[in-house]
Amino acid sequence: MRDRYLNLLKQCLLWLHLSAAFPLAGLLPLTVAAQGTPAIQRVNPTNWWVGMKKNNVQLLVYGPGAGTLSYAVAYPGVKLVKASTVENPNYAFLDLTIAATAKPGTVRLVGKKGGQTITRNWELKARDTSVKAQGVTDADFIYLAMPDRFANGDPSNDKFADMADPSSDRANPFLRHGGDLIGAVQRIGYLKDLGVTAVWFTPVIENNQPLTDEGGAKRASYHGYGFTDHYNVDRRLGGNEAYKAYVKQAHAAGLKVVQDAVYNHVGNNHWFIKDLPMKSWLHQWPTYTNTTYRYQPITDPHAAPSDRKVTLDGWFVPFLPDLNQQNPYVANFLIQHAIWSVETFGIDAWRIDTYLYNDQPFMNRCNQALLTEYPRIHIFGESSVNNVIDQAYYVRNNINFPFKSNQPGGLDFVLESALLDGLKQPVSYDGGVQRVYQTLAQDAVYQDPDKMVTFVDNHDHDRYLSVIGEDIAKYKMGLIWLLTTRGIPSMYYGTEILMKNFKNPSDAEVRRDFPGGWPDDKENKFTAAGRNAAENDAFQFVRTLATYRRDHAVLHSGKLMQYLPQDGLYVYFRYTPNGTVMVATNSTDKPASLPTARFAERTAGFTKARNVLTNEALNDISTISLPAKAAVVLELLR
Amino acid sequence: MRDRYLNLLKQCLLWLHLSAAFPLAGLLPLTVAAQGTPAIQRVNPTNWWVGMKKNNVQLLVYGPGAGTLSYAVAYPGVKLVKASTVENPNYAFLDLTIAATAKPGTVRLVGKKGGQTITRNWELKARDTSVKAQGVTDADFIYLAMPDRFANGDPSNDKFADMADPSSDRANPFLRHGGDLIGAVQRIGYLKDLGVTAVWFTPVIENNQPLTDEGGAKRASYHGYGFTDHYNVDRRLGGNEAYKAYVKQAHAAGLKVVQDAVYNHVGNNHWFIKDLPMKSWLHQWPTYTNTTYRYQPITDPHAAPSDRKVTLDGWFVPFLPDLNQQNPYVANFLIQHAIWSVETFGIDAWRIDTYLYNDQPFMNRCNQALLTEYPRIHIFGESSVNNVIDQAYYVRNNINFPFKSNQPGGLDFVLESALLDGLKQPVSYDGGVQRVYQTLAQDAVYQDPDKMVTFVDNHDHDRYLSVIGEDIAKYKMGLIWLLTTRGIPSMYYGTEILMKNFKNPSDAEVRRDFPGGWPDDKENKFTAAGRNAAENDAFQFVRTLATYRRDHAVLHSGKLMQYLPQDGLYVYFRYTPNGTVMVATNSTDKPASLPTARFAERTAGFTKARNVLTNEALNDISTISLPAKAAVVLELLR
Repeated sequence: MRDRYLNLLKQCLLWLHLSAAFPLAGLLPLTVAAQGTPAIQRVNPTNWWVGMKKNNVQLLVYGPGAGTLSYAVAYPGVKLVKASTVENPNYAFLDLTIAATAKPGTVRLVGKKGGQTITRNWELKARDTSVKAQGVTDADFIYLAMPDRFANGDPSNDKFADMADPSSDRANPFLRHGGDLIGAVQRIGYLKDLGVTAVWFTPVIENNQPLTDEGGAKRASYHGYGFTDHYNVDRRLGGNEAYKAYVKQAHAAGLKVVQDAVYNHVGNNHWFIKDLPMKSWLHQWPTYTNTTYRYQPITDPHAAPSDRKVTLDGWFVPFLPDLNQQNPYVANFLIQHAIWSVETFGIDAWRIDTYLYNDQPFMNRCNQALLTEYPRIHIFGESSVNNVIDQAYYVRNNINFPFKSNQPGGLDFVLESALLDGLKQPVSYDGGVQRVYQTLAQDAVYQDPDKMVTFVDNHDHDRYLSVIGEDIAKYKMGLIWLLTTRGIPSMYYGTEILMKNFKNPSDAEVRRDFPGGWPDDKENKFTAAGRNAAENDAFQFVRTLATYRRDHAVLHSGKLMQYLPQDGLYVYFRYTPNGTVMVATNSTDKPASLPTARFAERTAGFTKARNVLTNEALNDISTISLPAKAAVVLELLR
Repeated sequence: MRDRYLNLLKQCLLWLHLSAAFPLAGLLPLTVAAQGTPAIQRVNPTNWWVGMKKNNVQLLVYGPGAGTLSYAVAYPGVKLVKASTVENPNYAFLDLTIAATAKPGTVRLVGKKGGQTITRNWELKARDTSVKAQGVTDADFIYLAMPDRFANGDPSNDKFADMADPSSDRANPFLRHGGDLIGAVQRIGYLKDLGVTAVWFTPVIENNQPLTDEGGAKRASYHGYGFTDHYNVDRRLGGNEAYKAYVKQAHAAGLKVVQDAVYNHVGNNHWFIKDLPMKSWLHQWPTYTNTTYRYQPITDPHAAPSDRKVTLDGWFVPFLPDLNQQNPYVANFLIQHAIWSVETFGIDAWRIDTYLYNDQPFMNRCNQALLTEYPRIHIFGESSVNNVIDQAYYVRNNINFPFKSNQPGGLDFVLESALLDGLKQPVSYDGGVQRVYQTLAQDAVYQDPDKMVTFVDNHDHDRYLSVIGEDIAKYKMGLIWLLTTRGIPSMYYGTEILMKNFKNPSDAEVRRDFPGGWPDDKENKFTAAGRNAAENDAFQFVRTLATYRRDHAVLHSGKLMQYLPQDGLYVYFRYTPNGTVMVATNSTDKPASLPTARFAERTAGFTKARNVLTNEALNDISTISLPAKAAVVLELLR
């Protein structure tokens, strides 16, 4: 998210400072003590399960005077260990332990004050046996989409008059467009056919945020990064039941589901922000303080602590209050919600927004809690940095930093930049395709570079096709790298049908609706008939490559061996004892002839090859002809 | 050296391949067995000492049939443990141990063959008590010069008719110019006055190399990187005795001496290359193979072993045969020579040429041998790389590479590049002064970044003043960074008198004679009277800053704290419990006003300051006025 907000911030920070529309930009007030009859309006998590490894749960109980009650729980195997009150009398925190012997059922929370007794039922469920937490690995190919912009399966849920933003308007790029999870279910077949194996949607959790005024234009929180109730999927996407159904259908089709998690902040219309449990729930500042978006103070041994504090505790934007994860109540709330989400919906992997801005010891606790409960789950955070040292800091790494991250993977922003440079820059001593080679050559910093999630663009960046000058030769070259080098490749929706655009004038330009996702669309690019020739060529290209990758383990579990690029020719291999794939790139603008004797370590024993994309047979691989600006994928044959 | 040779290589590699002038470019032949009476012509090391920690010495004994003799040693406390013969019968290797009880004296080596007895005296000396191996630390300021181009104290040794290159011609930039160690001794006062505390000369060891023809121009080996006899300092610099005298005088004046060591290769006119001990003495290739000068295959976990081999075992240039340090005889020869040099001449620190091209396990052995003998010595190699991960690999680092270097320090090429970018580039998100900040922010990779040797140019690079557009404001800003940030600063000769030039058309342009170093020079810029106003301003600037640095421990042992640059303003502090120096840079081209409240961590308790360079008193440091393109150095006062 950084890039988008950085530009935004420059435009309107002063305005935001002064605006009464953002009361949260200063010190947040606490509610005064509740008057009248206490009540319990919310309990989070909304339920738990028997038989979880995490069998201690801290219930956040909210309602007028909820913190003034004396609580008791009478349920076999469930023990109320501790009831805590905080500054705001509308909150109580109840620490429960759930014994292995406890049975599923309805736990009755009883709160008393004077002669009054308040009761609230809270479910202790049986775990279901559905597929969940499968993880994503380098065998996968992730498709990233924004559910509001992908497909609208239910126009009746596009907007709700009772929500803070009651609007929906496809003609306005900044407002909601009505895409939803029902629409996504309808496109599972499309994604399967494309060769996708996992889908990552930008967050689906309720964003009941009012429109914000950013740089003069009213904008909806359609991106999903401003949660307002952790325990509800946004109604405009279909709500919790639609999400469950979507995951079930995806799993049935063999697609995995990645959830986009946000720990760092919430929307300023989050219910608990509007009645803050305690001052230390958030990072509060005497005057509004934005993060600098600078990560160097986190890893720099020479950093000023004050710079580090602004980076970490400064707010991402004025309308996304920054959670204080060092507050144990906040930490418990977030960790429990993560587990609850996986257990409830059957999530396979966890993408974490703005990873580097979070408190890192908290992140380790949270990651560990998920991994303890779900050993196969994959976790990969967004840490948008410009170098592998800072990138390595946020994943399991081989650098003896004072802090050791336990995050299994991460989004590989450094390789993204290198891949794009490899396409954009001419051949030079350290530029062009050398950038790809040299970046991968730094993989010694990671404990497992195969767990990095690779990409060439995303919802916050200029679209790939535009970045590379709408050059289809480069388009294919870059996607070949993405789908054949190490890591878990991900692709932003629409890349396969040549969607393009720069973020200028706004990021809405790179978040346009998928044509055909709406009932009234004139074009339907989900179908071959709806795509033009160039789009079908691109689609088939991605499909052929992704399908080959999916079906050939050598391209995921195979080792990578790369050779020094020479004269703009870059060659690498993926290999196992059972197979070898050679990827040869000619990054120059002239055809080239590539003698292969230099690659004897990997070509020994092979004499022939099959071009995976053209199906062409090569009966002699001693020299390979490479067209200008092209990569070839060759399955070596004996 | 890389940059120079890379350009050169492109120009003339084909020519070299074909030229009969470089017989070494192919497989090197071995001599045939000697006929007639055996003889011992050389023993290396030429002597050893009693009381060394290294008390096992392997003598390389050379002469016709020297390998056909049976050796004996009769000297109390000296034991001939093993005599080894190799492929070439003109070599024997004698492993001696020297007991702690051995006395100084003349050891008689006796070789017998049939009825013949050959004897050779070999000195076992007493160690002298002179100052040696003091190390250089961040308290030092190193001055780098090429002795042939610095000062000519003895015109009678400019050339020798019996040497392979008998020429000397100041009118020709590619030939020797006659500078020598006697000239250097005469300028010790100048260097002391400038604030220098250590001098690093490019290698002084004999380079009895013929002229080479590079790109059409005949070039002398005046740079010193092609050794032809490890145990002799070049006669044109004054020989061993002049070097001893120079070190003695330098030490007497309080200057330390850095020796420039070359392990990777020797000149093709080296005596042992002309009669190679064994085939494996060198890295031999079926056809001439140059190194790629690419370091990525060394650290890349995905690298092809063949690429790694070419990088490491390929030759630096065709006339510098590449030593095989995995050959134990070669390794012993080099390690013993290193120790011999320090003990003989009194060297304080060890700069290692082309460090990354050496066999790294050998380098560790060699470094450890020096450090065991001389615990205070500093060792810093030349590894010209473009990123801190590769730079860290060659020094003691915090990355769990499969190989762990023990080198205490290194030349900081990555910071050089960043410092120059900080001066050349305009203010931008990650560019300009951010490059300086961000590079230092990656210091977590080093075990001790204070031991890195920093610089803004050297004998292989464009001169600093030219790189920054001859802008005196930038000149001062960059030198302030160099002399006030972490590390051991070094400066290339002539920078203090505004010497300039780009390497184009040749590196000779950046290696011009120091004006005034030759008896017939019309100008003498070693004196204030010989310098013009701008040169005196520059000289005084360096002198003031270097002298302040020398005399104020806060600028060497003080901790560094740096703040995020904002709007092109970059502020950092060096501090100890006893003092704080603030360095504030305005890298923009407009004057700026800098509020200091943000730096409270370091400014607390201080209200005033003294500008170190102007001596101006600041009675209020709440806001500091910064001229355009300027750094100020402020000693904070209570």
